[in-house]
Amino acid sequence: MTEKIALTPATHTTPPAKFSHGVKKGNILQVAGQVGFLPAIEGQAPTPAGPTLREQTLQTFANVKAILQEGGASWDDVMMMRVYLTDVDHFAEMNEIYNAYFEAEGLKEAASARTTVYVGLPKGLLIEIDALAVLS
Amino acid sequence: MTEKIALTPATHTTPPAKFSHGVKKGNILQVAGQVGFLPAIEGQAPTPAGPTLREQTLQTFANVKAILQEGGASWDDVMMMRVYLTDVDHFAEMNEIYNAYFEAEGLKEAASARTTVYVGLPKGLLIEIDALAVLS
Amino acid sequence: MTEKIALTPATHTTPPAKFSHGVKKGNILQVAGQVGFLPAIEGQAPTPAGPTLREQTLQTFANVKAILQEGGASWDDVMMMRVYLTDVDHFAEMNEIYNAYFEAEGLKEAASARTTVYVGLPKGLLIEIDALAVLS
Repeated sequence: MTEKIALTPATHTTPPAKFSHGVKKGNILQVAGQVGFLPAIEGQAPTPAGPTLREQTLQTFANVKAILQEGGASWDDVMMMRVYLTDVDHFAEMNEIYNAYFEAEGLKEAASARTTVYVGLPKGLLIEIDALAVLS
Repeated sequence: MTEKIALTPATHTTPPAKFSHGVKKGNILQVAGQVGFLPAIEGQAPTPAGPTLREQTLQTFANVKAILQEGGASWDDVMMMRVYLTDVDHFAEMNEIYNAYFEAEGLKEAASARTTVYVGLPKGLLIEIDALAVLS
Repeated sequence: MTEKIALTPATHTTPPAKFSHGVKKGNILQVAGQVGFLPAIEGQAPTPAGPTLREQTLQTFANVKAILQEGGASWDDVMMMRVYLTDVDHFAEMNEIYNAYFEAEGLKEAASARTTVYVGLPKGLLIEIDALAVLS
């Protein structure tokens, strides 16, 4: 029997419903949809890192990474990232930020697969990302 | 060689195309996108449980659960649920229904991860959910 | 330690960002979101197979299949396909193309699970598909 454990970084706001920010079971780790909320401050509502795509994307990456690390994983273990944008015109800018970020992170293994689609998100949010990782 | 098997609960309508409502291979179980259709009645077109988000969400949960059970799994095995809504204004109500449902189900393990995004769905449908499970 | 390897068919255009068209780690293979781009020609921008849903869907299938094959997998290993369309009115036609395609492919195992939702895609693209496979 392999246990499923919740991954809840100290920096994260409480999920708005009965779900986990991340779960790990055996060698599979799933990160829930993350957005650009700043580290949680008790008694305050979740606050985006800023109004721009750049601010929110970088904060979203930080939030995904915190959950990976909580589960003993890293970007190198990520198989798939799903990127949800609200505007097709943000694609080129997101890719620039994406490339620079992962260049700086210094991936040692193949880059993750990715799907990007354009959806609706709650007001003020420009990007959401979730990730599936397989640990070694 | 591990076989991939289709999971087809007796309650389910025939899929509208050559796909399975669920599949299981080894310890991985994938539930296809479920909507709020009532149990199938032969010779009748699929019918939503009702026009409201509540009716459709509860029926969708029942449809996902039937597939999990067909594969010998339960909500406790679910790693990720993807919730597709059509309207950002439905988020709070969906979360209330979601929380009450999983409270009543009495999860023994960590709650699943989740991503919620807002997309288009066929006319009359307000919610669609799919799920990835890892069995113990 | 299981290595994660990138799957890059010779027919594919370079991804527009630092992600892989597919990755494989152990028995898990993830195909990134594929669209109906024709096989890459050096020095030319990616070009859709045509303006119609049929042309783009068939090319998208070919692109997903090339990545599966690059990883030693086939359609029979696919657990989940996510189909992103831009227009609810395309559902029936996509299903016809889908059914005929998989009829011709001669699946030996259960058909994959599937979720279809309606999102925005870059101008001119009518369909995007990604896939999760579990190898035997």
